[in-house]
Amino acid sequence: MTSAALIEDQHVAFAVELAEVARTVLRENDVARIDVSVKPDRSLVTAMDILIEDRLRAMIAARYPAHGIIGEEREWVRPGAEHVWVLDPIDGTTAFIAGMPVYGTLIALAVGGVPRLGIIDIPAIDSRWIGAEGRQTTRNGTPVRTRACPSLAQAIMTNSNQDYFALKERPALDRLRAVTSARVYGGASLNYGLLADGRTDLAIDGGQKVFDFAPFRPIVEGAGGVVTDWAGAPLTLESSGQLLGAGDAKIHRQALDLIKDLKAVPAGA
Amino acid sequence: MTSAALIEDQHVAFAVELAEVARTVLRENDVARIDVSVKPDRSLVTAMDILIEDRLRAMIAARYPAHGIIGEEREWVRPGAEHVWVLDPIDGTTAFIAGMPVYGTLIALAVGGVPRLGIIDIPAIDSRWIGAEGRQTTRNGTPVRTRACPSLAQAIMTNSNQDYFALKERPALDRLRAVTSARVYGGASLNYGLLADGRTDLAIDGGQKVFDFAPFRPIVEGAGGVVTDWAGAPLTLESSGQLLGAGDAKIHRQALDLIKDLKAVPAGA
Repeated sequence: MTSAALIEDQHVAFAVELAEVARTVLRENDVARIDVSVKPDRSLVTAMDILIEDRLRAMIAARYPAHGIIGEEREWVRPGAEHVWVLDPIDGTTAFIAGMPVYGTLIALAVGGVPRLGIIDIPAIDSRWIGAEGRQTTRNGTPVRTRACPSLAQAIMTNSNQDYFALKERPALDRLRAVTSARVYGGASLNYGLLADGRTDLAIDGGQKVFDFAPFRPIVEGAGGVVTDWAGAPLTLESSGQLLGAGDAKIHRQALDLIKDLKAVPAGA
Repeated sequence: MTSAALIEDQHVAFAVELAEVARTVLRENDVARIDVSVKPDRSLVTAMDILIEDRLRAMIAARYPAHGIIGEEREWVRPGAEHVWVLDPIDGTTAFIAGMPVYGTLIALAVGGVPRLGIIDIPAIDSRWIGAEGRQTTRNGTPVRTRACPSLAQAIMTNSNQDYFALKERPALDRLRAVTSARVYGGASLNYGLLADGRTDLAIDGGQKVFDFAPFRPIVEGAGGVVTDWAGAPLTLESSGQLLGAGDAKIHRQALDLIKDLKAVPAGA
């Protein structure tokens, strides 16, 4: 079986169904009246995060009862299954609460521990990226490709939220800031869509959880780019949450060289 | 003459005309084919920045030939005049180039050196804030108000781009990060619109030029909030470019106490 065959058309179609439901909930509810609470890790969660995740989980359980589910807001179900859906009902919840139009829904399907299908859905700008192993990444149905970048000095870099960096990870941002052309902050998952579009060149993030990054590998790779952890390893469900994405593999190697000493130390090492 | 009378209805209507022209140019041009160059200060400028500024300048010169004009891309005209228009054709040019939907056009009218009329126009989300001395701030015609915030610990804070902070200003961000509930990065001028809307509580920025912040005072004050420099002084055309905005005056005072030692040293002091 080729790796392309691991993701079937029915999986892609079903992921789009999930994204449609999430978008409808986000659109139909009055964001000015959302109920916000603070999670034990001090991050913010809205009633809508939970509402969306519960709906998507119910759809998955009905359609693929043997598949696992990893979601941000509820307990994980069979996370070691061959097929695992990874859900972030609202990526960028604080942006959502604040009214910043960069929040979105993330949906991924991992097969054998590797995310091979991913959707980034950004309702405020009507944009949906779909990436799947063996297929060309699209934005709203139109194929997108990362761009070549002649040097780090000409690269536009994104970073979602530096607050998620551990103290020892912070030099990564400083080092890359010193050598790149310009930075755009904020953006959350949108940054990886814009990287796929060839609108930016480099994306760095730290402290991300699996539901924050699961769709990025199929989307960025399917557009011709590269996304790995800070040790240069392709992203899996087990990745550390240190992300480095680039549209041009050469730029990725150069950026990696500058930060790889800051790679996460595996537990127990 | 009361201060409200300094801004006449004709000024507001004309500022809206300017914003409409800017929005039309931004919408009609294919952002994927924009021509990008690097300014002497290493910031990015597009052909569209210059196109829009030139059009707005021509409109102002035709309508108010005695008024001054301060703009980001061209030489200043009569910056000491009683009436001075302040233009930033594309605030957040890097966001614009990258496809991040937070860029916008800023238009302000200063009378006697104080910005008293301001527009923040964010075309990607169809949002326009209008603020003028003596009038209630509106977003797309609907009155908006800042919100009360019980304590810094419950405040959502925004910061556009930390790269603009001088090294000695950086502790301001760290100190406020340590005491606030959550941060949203990026956003540029949109942050001050969201503050006026009562969606966020605190906005901090550094290294801003007059065209980056001129509309913020009439918009934030007209929504019931406060925006000053880091010494607590209300914003004028001469302000240092250190900005601290809050929806709740009590929160503003508390935040100011934490950073006022970092206020800009006046030239020659």
